This record gives sequence, structure tokens and C-alpha cells, in this order.
Amino acid sequence: KAFVEVKPDSHFSIHNLPYGIFKRNGGSTATPRPGVAIGDYVLDLSAIHSAGLFDGPLLSSSDCFHQPNLNKFLELGRPAWKEARATLQKLLSSAEPALQNNASLRQKALLPVDEVEMLLPIAIGDYTDFFSSIHHAKNCGTIFRGPENPINPNWFHLPIAYHGRASSIVISGTDIIRPRGQGHPSGNSPPYFGPSRKLDFELEMAVVVGPGNELGKPIDVNEAAEHIFGVVLMNDWSARDIQAWEYVPLGPFLGKSFGTTISPWIVTLDALEPFACDAPNQIPQPLPYLAEKISKNYDISLEVRIKPAGQEEAFTVTRSNFNHLYWTITQQLAHHTINGCNLRPGDLLGTGTISGPESDSYGLVSARGMVTMLDLVHAQGRSYHMCHDYPYYFTCEV
Amino acid sequence: KAFVEVKPDSHFSIHNLPYGIFKRNGGSTATPRPGVAIGDYVLDLSAIHSAGLFDGPLLSSSDCFHQPNLNKFLELGRPAWKEARATLQKLLSSAEPALQNNASLRQKALLPVDEVEMLLPIAIGDYTDFFSSIHHAKNCGTIFRGPENPINPNWFHLPIAYHGRASSIVISGTDIIRPRGQGHPSGNSPPYFGPSRKLDFELEMAVVVGPGNELGKPIDVNEAAEHIFGVVLMNDWSARDIQAWEYVPLGPFLGKSFGTTISPWIVTLDALEPFACDAPNQIPQPLPYLAEKISKNYDISLEVRIKPAGQEEAFTVTRSNFNHLYWTITQQLAHHTINGCNLRPGDLLGTGTISGPESDSYGLVSARGMVTMLDLVHAQGRSYHMCHDYPYYFTCEV
Ligand SMILES: [Ca+2]
Ligand SMILES: [Ca+2]
Ligand SMILES: [Mg+2]
Ligand SMILES: [Mg+2]
Ligand code: NI
Repeated sequence: KAFVEVKPDSHFSIHNLPYGIFKRNGGSTATPRPGVAIGDYVLDLSAIHSAGLFDGPLLSSSDCFHQPNLNKFLELGRPAWKEARATLQKLLSSAEPALQNNASLRQKALLPVDEVEMLLPIAIGDYTDFFSSIHHAKNCGTIFRGPENPINPNWFHLPIAYHGRASSIVISGTDIIRPRGQGHPSGNSPPYFGPSRKLDFELEMAVVVGPGNELGKPIDVNEAAEHIFGVVLMNDWSARDIQAWEYVPLGPFLGKSFGTTISPWIVTLDALEPFACDAPNQIPQPLPYLAEKISKNYDISLEVRIKPAGQEEAFTVTRSNFNHLYWTITQQLAHHTINGCNLRPGDLLGTGTISGPESDSYGLVSARGMVTMLDLVHAQGRSYHMCHDYPYYFTCEV
Repeated sequence: KAFVEVKPDSHFSIHNLPYGIFKRNGGSTATPRPGVAIGDYVLDLSAIHSAGLFDGPLLSSSDCFHQPNLNKFLELGRPAWKEARATLQKLLSSAEPALQNNASLRQKALLPVDEVEMLLPIAIGDYTDFFSSIHHAKNCGTIFRGPENPINPNWFHLPIAYHGRASSIVISGTDIIRPRGQGHPSGNSPPYFGPSRKLDFELEMAVVVGPGNELGKPIDVNEAAEHIFGVVLMNDWSARDIQAWEYVPLGPFLGKSFGTTISPWIVTLDALEPFACDAPNQIPQPLPYLAEKISKNYDISLEVRIKPAGQEEAFTVTRSNFNHLYWTITQQLAHHTINGCNLRPGDLLGTGTISGPESDSYGLVSARGMVTMLDLVHAQGRSYHMCHDYPYYFTCEV
């Protein structure tokens, strides 16, 4: 369908077209700019715009593709996103000559992925992390509250969340430095201080917010999808010893704020539409402001693979699915604004750890989707490194 | 000392010179720009810079005063802040003719406060709220944990904090809309849903961060003051019914994120130096990374006054002092980075409610510095309005 070669196992077909920000390796023209992935190439959207090929009414005179992040494009909303998608699918199709037969433009605009460096795709004003997988809530609650009544009663009435740290969100491939901090005192000694001994990460996806809302004007749950541009993969790195000591009574702080990893490519909600599936039935019935006319999840396989340093092969530590969310991403977003809180373009909403129903013994702390790094690496090392990622799964090199 | 008239009861003498962002009322030159307050005037720093009067080595060729927020100036750090202060104190002194005797520049650069509109002075990347007053911790803890052991053991070992919402921080004078949300169910009925019935605000100050640090590189507690530009007054609006139902296990979220008010003027740490005083002795002794060579608080009277709608007079509901902090602002900042978390210019660190040791009955929920709005206003009103503020106290009109 695309004139660009797309290998059969590629995640980047013409039906996906995820957005990111890249710069060319070296060179004086290495300014950050928006691109979409197609096969093993990145299509430079600023070059396509300069060539006049974004000829739709919303994008032809916009400068949103001449920006160092995607925020301005996100602010334009779904009509502009749909126009961009239609334009790009046409432009890349084998039936269309405009780009295919223009060798000099192709040379300029279609860059092999190994000739570019990916950057953080959005300026993130605020980052929120939800807690929306019932299996994860059950697994965590069993540990902290006991097996009889693992889930706090409020969990079934509202999507629980906390504010996270925006400054330390980085893209895959960025080193995560093992945090130092305080852990619980034992006996009469002072609290432990030193490198975290309980570092793990949670497998999550995260929603990238589009237009958003003014302060004081909540978003209706049935219109919430209009404010969701797409999703990224997210690793919520967590130092459990630091977290356990600090979190009463105000929640996670330094146990999380040392780093959060997202994928460089944002997969659009429009591209995910074919994977939409019914969300779980919710009992008790949610309050009217959370009751959706259509309640959707997405059937997307998730897999965590780890490749220890010095080993050839990555191995899979967990498999899950995006459809394990109890609270949908639209319910999360509507709930976030019900008090009048304003969301801005580029805000990031983590789903919370996405755990499945089956237990697993593969180096996990307590739940599918939580991987204890210390079980897998030498305790004396200070830095972890994630080396690759793909739209629907990622590999970690430790 | 200044050639501009400064009334005896003004907080804006030549020794203060707080920074803000303003725009002229109406007119085509109404672009937001930095200014300092002097008496009843605002000095336009972009005009002063354009006139070549910032002639020091760090600021003469910087464009930091031609920005719509103070972030670029904050990033320059204390040497530039001191250069600006020295330049401005000289320029405004009655012994110096450069501005005083230049009528056309004075006309352009020295604007009556009632001819300008104040704006949010900083782009806030991340907002953190600490919990550093021992009297407040004791008052809150007595309510939630009982009088025998009101304070959780971790409190004495580290400055407790949570991430707050940056998008909904506004300056004084901005309407705060009463949030809607869920409150505790009673008996077998579903949770309450509607406008909050327990709205209050906490009296705080907040630190405005200067240069900050790279991810993974903590700031030493003895160098932390170099990263503090100044302080603002802060109102941490809180819906206690929403907070009480949502906050287990991840902390405050929608109970706070509907709005946080700061003063438009940032008082610099350099201006506060004459008010420095000893911080309280800390027992147990803090861990080495929190042990300061010099541990300072600031003796600053704080007062909350409320002027109900339709009444002539404001009345004082609480008095406190900035010196009631147990954990100093430099300890807060150093602790925030000990795990490698990066602070950026313009980040805001609330101190937490500043409560004094004496109890008070003037319409307070539970502690000095916490004011229940509902005791003071008609429950049917939806919007609160703060109408005035001054550097060291503010007035609220409800
Ligand atoms: Ca998480
Ligand atoms: Ca507070
Ligand atoms: Mg994290
Ligand atoms: Mg607040
Ligand atoms: Ni908590």
C-alpha cells in the first residue's frame, strides 16, 4: 500500500504513522522537528509542509510542523489530526506520485531511522499517573492491606491518581540513574541512606492530551476522546524502599520523581481505532459524570523484554494487554477535569500499571508488569539503560 | 533614599524591589514584560534595558528582560540577580540622575500600578508542596491520628512533600471556582457528588527556583540557596471532602488541583536577608545530606484577612510567621533533588501551611493558617474572589 518498503514484521505500516520529534545526526540543519515513522524511515513533516503538500484547509497555513515539539499540532484538535492522517496516507501510498516521483524531495524528507536521533516529542506541562488496572490494584492491595479486602472502597467509584513529576520524563534510550534516598530505619538506628535497593518499573501506557480545557470548565466524558491525541508506552521507574518510607500521608514523591521513560513515538487514537473493544462492565455503576455512552478499551498486546548487559538475547518477563483497564482513558480524562482542573496540550496521563489476571514468576515483585531490576542485575551498578523501543513493546538493556 | 515617592506604609521600598510580569492596560504596546515594584509604581525592565542602563557584564547583552516571564532571568543565577539589584538600587536612588532626570524615559519606564495588569510571573514547569511546619503537622495529625502520636515518624527525618498541579496556579485576583467532585458515601448510598462543601485554603509561602540541576545530579544542601530566587505568597485552596475520599493511597489530587493562588510579586531572597534568623534545632539530627552549615529561617509576619462580599471592612483570621518552618527552604530544595530529580528555573516549592504554636478560634478548621470559607460565606455561592495582595499579607474578598 505504501511506496516506501515496510517489512512484514514492522510496526510502522501506513495504517500506523506514529508521530515523534527527531533531529538529523550532526549537520547544521539538525533542528528538532516533527516526523512520522513509516517502515524504517522517518518522514520530515516540516519538509512536507514547506513543499506545500499539506494542502488541507486546517494545516496548509499552520506552522505547527515547524516547531520543536508537537504541542501546537496537539492543540489543533481532531479535525486537524484527521486531515494530517488523510494527507500523509495519500502521500505515502503507491498510487500517489507527488512524493514518490519527486527524488529531491524524497531525499530531503524521507530519512532512514538510523540517520536521526529521536527526542522527547512533547513539552509536558503536567504529568498524572492513574491506577486503573483492577488486577494491579488487587495485587498491590493484597500486599499492603491483606487478601480479604485488598482494594480500598473508593477505587470502585473513581479513577485514583496522583500528580507525578514532569521534569524527569525522558525518552527510551536515556540512562536512568539509580536514585539515592532514605529507606525505613530498622530498630533504633537512623533511616537507611544510600542507593535504592528496590528499584523496579511499572509497565504502563500514557495518554497524550490534545486541546484540553479552560480552568473551571470540565470536559464531558462523552467528549473526552476529542482531547486524546494518542498514546505512548511508559515505564514508571519506582524506588520501593524510598517510596515505602516517604509516602505517608501525601503519596509518592522521590520514590518516583528520579525518572519516567516514554517511547519517542506517539501512536494516534485514530490508528488504534481498529483495536477498540468493549470496556469491562463496572459495578457499582459509575456516577453520571463518569457514565459513558460508549465505553472502549483497546486490544493491544504489551510485552516487557529485558536484555541484561553482556548477554545476547533479550527475554520476556511479562505480557499484558491494554484492555485490562477497569477505568477507561476517557473516564480518566473526564474525572481529571470534573473539579475544574485545566488540561493543556501535551499533558501526559499514565494509565497505571497494566496487569493481567494471571500470575507470573518471571522476576516480578508482586504483579504482572512490575519488574524488579535488582533480581536481574548486579546490585553494584548505578545506571540502567533502555536501548530500543517499538510501538507496542520495548526491550530493556540493563 | 529612592527618588520615587514611597509612602511610609508601603512594602515596596528600594530595599525590597520584588519582581513581577505586567502589561499596560490596553494599548498596542501591551506585551507582557518584567518589572519591579517601587512605591506605587512599576519599573519596566525592558525599557530600562533598551535604554542601555543595565550596564553590568552579565545583563547588558542578555535578553532576559525582553521575555514574557522571568524564567530566563531566573536561569542566570545569583550573580545576575545581584547585578540587577545593584543596578536598580543605584538607578532609583535620589543621588543618581540617569533615570531621575530623563523625563521621557521616566514617562516610558515608570508606570503607576493602577495603569498595569499583573500576570503570572513565571512559567511553572513543576509545582511541589511541602509539609514543613511542625505546628501544622501536629494539628493535622491530631485530627487524623489522635493526640498521643500525631506526627508520623518519617516527618522528623525528611521534608514530606507531594507533587501538585502546575496548570491551575493563578495569581491573586483570579476567580477560584468552587470545585465539584465526589465525597464520602454515607451508609449504603453512593458517594456524594456536587459542589465541595468543605472548601478552605492554606496559608503558605512558596520558593521560586533559579538555575536548578541536571537530572541525576543532586544539589548540595549548602549550595541550595544559590538555586532560590525568591518567594511568593501562596494560597493552597483545598476541598477537604473531595480530598478525604480520594486520597488513599496516593495522596492529594482533585481536592487541590482546581486552583492555587500566588502573589504576582516575587520577593527576592537577597531582599529578605535582613530578616534571616536561626532555624529551629532539629532532633533527631538530620542525615548528612540534610545537615546545613548555616540553617536559616526568615522572620516575616504573615496575616490572613478576609473581606466578605458586601462588607466594608476586612477582618484578620490568622497571624503567623515564616519562621515557623521546621525544615528550612534550603533543606526542602536539597531533599527534592537527592534522588536525582531535576529542578528547572521557575519551579515552585510550597512550604506547606505555616502554622504558629497558638490556637485560634477565628473561623479556622483545625489550625492557624487554615480558613474554612464555608463558615464565612453563603454556601450557595460558587465563586470566590481574592481582590488585593501585598508582599507580606493579602486580603480576600469572598
Ligand atoms: Ca504508576
Ligand atoms: Ca499545602
Ligand atoms: Mg516515574
Ligand atoms: Mg491548590
Ligand atoms: Ni497516602
